[in-house]
Amino acid sequence: MSDRTAIGLLGYGTVGSAVDRMLRARTEEIARVAGGPVEVRRALVRDAGRDRPQAAPDGLLTGDFADVRDDPEIRVVAEVMGGVDPTRRYLLDLFAAGKSVVSANKQLLARHGEELFAAAERHGVQLRFEASVCAAIPVVKVLRESMIANDVAGVLGIVNGTTNFILSAMAAGQDYASALQRAQELGYAEADPTEDVNGADAAAKIAILASIAFHTRVTLEDVPFEGIERVEATDAALARELGYRIKLIASAERLEGGVAARVHPTLVPEDHPLATIEGSFNAVMLRGSAIREITLAGPGAGGDETASAVIGDVMTVLGTSGTGFFTHDGYFRKVPVVPEADVPSAFYLRLDVLDAPGVLAQISRVLADQQVSIESVIQRAEGGRAQLVVTTHPAPEGRFFSAVHGIVSLGVVAGDPHVLRVLPR
Amino acid sequence: MSDRTAIGLLGYGTVGSAVDRMLRARTEEIARVAGGPVEVRRALVRDAGRDRPQAAPDGLLTGDFADVRDDPEIRVVAEVMGGVDPTRRYLLDLFAAGKSVVSANKQLLARHGEELFAAAERHGVQLRFEASVCAAIPVVKVLRESMIANDVAGVLGIVNGTTNFILSAMAAGQDYASALQRAQELGYAEADPTEDVNGADAAAKIAILASIAFHTRVTLEDVPFEGIERVEATDAALARELGYRIKLIASAERLEGGVAARVHPTLVPEDHPLATIEGSFNAVMLRGSAIREITLAGPGAGGDETASAVIGDVMTVLGTSGTGFFTHDGYFRKVPVVPEADVPSAFYLRLDVLDAPGVLAQISRVLADQQVSIESVIQRAEGGRAQLVVTTHPAPEGRFFSAVHGIVSLGVVAGDPHVLRVLPR
Repeated sequence: MSDRTAIGLLGYGTVGSAVDRMLRARTEEIARVAGGPVEVRRALVRDAGRDRPQAAPDGLLTGDFADVRDDPEIRVVAEVMGGVDPTRRYLLDLFAAGKSVVSANKQLLARHGEELFAAAERHGVQLRFEASVCAAIPVVKVLRESMIANDVAGVLGIVNGTTNFILSAMAAGQDYASALQRAQELGYAEADPTEDVNGADAAAKIAILASIAFHTRVTLEDVPFEGIERVEATDAALARELGYRIKLIASAERLEGGVAARVHPTLVPEDHPLATIEGSFNAVMLRGSAIREITLAGPGAGGDETASAVIGDVMTVLGTSGTGFFTHDGYFRKVPVVPEADVPSAFYLRLDVLDAPGVLAQISRVLADQQVSIESVIQRAEGGRAQLVVTTHPAPEGRFFSAVHGIVSLGVVAGDPHVLRVLPR
Repeated sequence: MSDRTAIGLLGYGTVGSAVDRMLRARTEEIARVAGGPVEVRRALVRDAGRDRPQAAPDGLLTGDFADVRDDPEIRVVAEVMGGVDPTRRYLLDLFAAGKSVVSANKQLLARHGEELFAAAERHGVQLRFEASVCAAIPVVKVLRESMIANDVAGVLGIVNGTTNFILSAMAAGQDYASALQRAQELGYAEADPTEDVNGADAAAKIAILASIAFHTRVTLEDVPFEGIERVEATDAALARELGYRIKLIASAERLEGGVAARVHPTLVPEDHPLATIEGSFNAVMLRGSAIREITLAGPGAGGDETASAVIGDVMTVLGTSGTGFFTHDGYFRKVPVVPEADVPSAFYLRLDVLDAPGVLAQISRVLADQQVSIESVIQRAEGGRAQLVVTTHPAPEGRFFSAVHGIVSLGVVAGDPHVLRVLPR
């Protein structure tokens, strides 16, 4: 046995190759956190001989599933090939071979979760699935590990980026057809967008989240769902008039008689945390007895984002198998702290100045001398004096404060200058 | 040894008693997830004899630290007493006694983290600290466990609820003094709010987050900080005019020459995810090479919220010590799925109707017959016809759709009714 932890991949497309690339690029960091190096040993593909966009190291790819299943050094396999068959069969075989599996496959989990989890438990291995819901947004980990002390009351989410992009465009005045076309041009919608726009993708995700939130099995068949195809521009405009935004909301609730999970286009009050989630982003709000509510937001799709979630799960499998991962404090670097004067900031500067010719020119000159570039100016006269508000582009803090010192020495400013930082737009 | 996992508490105030109460209330759930029951065995308090607002079971409280330190069955201790001394000494003694510690103490971590982590690692035990930053918002877990595959570029957060409440009130037109007074009346600000309003509390939190984000030690002394005491109502109004909101932003960045962590009142663009975090809520945005950005938002303080984070950490300590916690699938309940017709929803109903007397009365009657209560109505004439938009209060879906069916049979509606769900305000 080598001292490396070997993992296997089922699939070497966008996500699989990103997992391999990211593990290679961060060998040292991962070894420090994990207590030893982690590497991809074999990756199953349909045709190991063909040319592919993502070049793989020699000997990594194989067309034979047995090469992954029977490698005794492979402890964890990441399933990033998708599909229900033969993927389901592969997972059952891997569990029987004593290997844990990390899966990004929401359809497989939502349809066959019960059988797969039972098989994993029977063989004493793990099945983890963070990447199957909202890519890198760690909603599964938070529900399972951070909310143990809570009775979960509900899960409410925007879990499909394609439909959120389209609804955002419709809120800005576009009609459904042109919004969908734009989403396809930008790569936010597939050539065949059916599963996204009809709500089926969101339904699979909320089935998974409902199951872990309420510790009961909720399958795809339990989730009524409706897509956004029949939402019209008129509805988007009326919703706005009523103080709402239209979002495709996937929800899972604990009701008196049981649980309910569903997906519907929904009017969301404009001050609700989910109302401001725009474009292809996803967000999930978790409500619990102790935490009130937590909202997690971020990109819900993407190759690197999904690979990040897969790697997190691989590490968690290794870390909960008695190796002590995650128990180190992890401060293995000695990175210097940058002196405050060298840290760049954009600034807001409010001054009470003499309302006299040339004052703005003098102040601008002092800023320019310190190479601080002005972004905007508001000047308003107020009885012999003027309120001057300047915002700047980012500049090293030391240079900005030298300029402020220089401005004060001009003798045209009354009172103290008011300084605030600005986050760039 | 009993089959129960025993934990100890340092402190039995708001947070400590909530940890005890929540573990008791959820014995079964926690046993199912953890593989066995978990209970509080002893809790250290200053005076075990005095009356206290939170009643404790007989024999739980002790005034003698040795009762916790020397109990061989206690494997994990939750430190919820606060303060730097003697707390630091207690933690070092607990590590030496082979016990892992979960701490909610940001000042202790930000000041003495290096010494404490080194001692824990030397003795082969764990120190976890989710509750020390933003209570139940799981930012420490996400940074440490979900973002392993990422080079972290930055952490940007609203990590102090008192100041966010005051700044929200100022954005709505209040001045600083009255906003602070209101925060104190509502319990969002301490009688002595100094550490909150001057930025020191936020500085301790960002020091902790910077350390784990960049794997390097950043202490409180490395964090320049500025509070909100000098922000004026004028600045709040001008910021709004410029398209910004003022927030107390704690940031940690990876710059060319090293790292920089700091706290300043900052203008945040109004479409930025942090701009919409209002009142006493906290939010943290994490930026990484693979995930782009993830934002976590929720209540950043509170007894139950903090206790929830403490319990999550206790379970994680147990779960990463070879017991296999978190590896079960956890679907131990069989909760029925509620039939769709019984699930309550509020609705938006748009109809193209005859613009004739009595039509609205007829439609209202059908809704009333199904006990569906109307929340708002918009009716607009459009050349002989009218667009009618009704929003309802929540009602069982079956009754609403019976009403829609009844409305269609009235013969006054042209085309299909347009139905959307509504999230209550």
